[in-house]
Amino acid sequence: MSDTPRPDSAMLDRIRIVLIGTSHPGNIGGAARAMRNMGLDDLALVAPRCDPKDREAYSRASGANALVDAARVHDQLEAAVADCTLVVGASARSRHLPWPMVSPRALAENLPQALAPDGARLALVFGREDTGLTNAELQRCHQHVHIPTNPDFSSLNLAAAVQVLAYECRQAWLTASDSAADDDAAQPFGVAWDNPPASHADMERFFAHLERTLTTLAFHDPDNPRQLMARLRRLFLRAHLDSMEMNILRGILGTMDKRLRDTAPSPRRDGE
Amino acid sequence: MSDTPRPDSAMLDRIRIVLIGTSHPGNIGGAARAMRNMGLDDLALVAPRCDPKDREAYSRASGANALVDAARVHDQLEAAVADCTLVVGASARSRHLPWPMVSPRALAENLPQALAPDGARLALVFGREDTGLTNAELQRCHQHVHIPTNPDFSSLNLAAAVQVLAYECRQAWLTASDSAADDDAAQPFGVAWDNPPASHADMERFFAHLERTLTTLAFHDPDNPRQLMARLRRLFLRAHLDSMEMNILRGILGTMDKRLRDTAPSPRRDGE
Repeated sequence: MSDTPRPDSAMLDRIRIVLIGTSHPGNIGGAARAMRNMGLDDLALVAPRCDPKDREAYSRASGANALVDAARVHDQLEAAVADCTLVVGASARSRHLPWPMVSPRALAENLPQALAPDGARLALVFGREDTGLTNAELQRCHQHVHIPTNPDFSSLNLAAAVQVLAYECRQAWLTASDSAADDDAAQPFGVAWDNPPASHADMERFFAHLERTLTTLAFHDPDNPRQLMARLRRLFLRAHLDSMEMNILRGILGTMDKRLRDTAPSPRRDGE
Repeated sequence: MSDTPRPDSAMLDRIRIVLIGTSHPGNIGGAARAMRNMGLDDLALVAPRCDPKDREAYSRASGANALVDAARVHDQLEAAVADCTLVVGASARSRHLPWPMVSPRALAENLPQALAPDGARLALVFGREDTGLTNAELQRCHQHVHIPTNPDFSSLNLAAAVQVLAYECRQAWLTASDSAADDDAAQPFGVAWDNPPASHADMERFFAHLERTLTTLAFHDPDNPRQLMARLRRLFLRAHLDSMEMNILRGILGTMDKRLRDTAPSPRRDGE
């Protein structure tokens, strides 16, 4: 699924992750890895409270080192988002003055439109590990985004918050670019399958065979069928057998038939 | 949004995160924090390749220490998921034999139904940091879930993968508890069902029985298995057997066994 080349990742190229006052270099590395996994590569750091090139940053970045190296460092939020047309602050809660607030999903679903115009650019702004964004920073945002969390334990790790929002952005992009249908998702079981489906006629032949064999086995009594065949039909129809599975089941029944025939208790047969 | 008390978090209480062969204690701590942030608290570890109580685990858990402490440790996947009715493996890609595959969102959106029956329980299974899940582990799953990633950098951090799936589960739960669920639509197959789902342990006993019978029947050669049992696993896991269907299939196998035993060609037996 992820292998399918996408014609245009312009939407993702227009998303910048901005981390303000980060204390732990591991979180910068973890955020970089999360970004690159989701196809984002524009990272800006505002007044980091650690060395962004610390060994721990590279250790957590695990192959997304280039993002850490390319991260621009600014003194002020202002400089990091000057060219952005939409600035969204990640916020645990709206403080004092209520501010437009969206869920990660609603934010992401709006992005294909919001980022369509020439020159459009989004900044997703994340605050300090301990104190988040200041009121002044929150009030520079068009809107706030809140990741719904367990009210008893709501403090998300910084890299985890970046992961969730980057994931939602990628999902929205895939969905938007997919209205031109994803090949795999369009498959019956969500993945390219190895055998064609069994036809209705195949299924009916299988059920007839199954009923004969179960009758010979004296497991099924056609004069007192109760719901046995109905339950077996329901099961195998629900599974949407493919043609090879059908052949395997027919093969099992055929082998069973042969054993039952070869060993039929009476009448006594000669030869064989 | 996250402050609103929800009447019933039963759906989230029925989700277990299973980590197999984890090497880095920080990932266990990070996964525990992600879980608790999203309201999950059932963590199981299978054959960890590190000390789960290492300082680094608690450091990354950051307040979710209780989850790390309560995590049960098992030697085998089997023991960790025996009581689960739905087992889903996180997989980078379907190998060899295609297996039903869902996106994180499709998986989560199905959970309110899948976890509605009494006794229903989901295991989300995550593999090793370096090599993921083995084919044998993947073939114990009803389905696989793939987090869409950048094809140029697809290896997600383990805790980040747990974060994404736990987030999707929480979102689905919030959405479901917001809509005054239609009783029938809330059931696994879109209608009130007549029997509870079979558990993972039931399924494994059935597969073991099926393999014995097919071997006795000489339909299956354990020394040259090809993909026979994998294909049968895939078929019956996909169908999500209920407990009565399970009993019927075990009954058919038991009846066949008896016939095969009574008529075994050699050694010649007396009596009976």
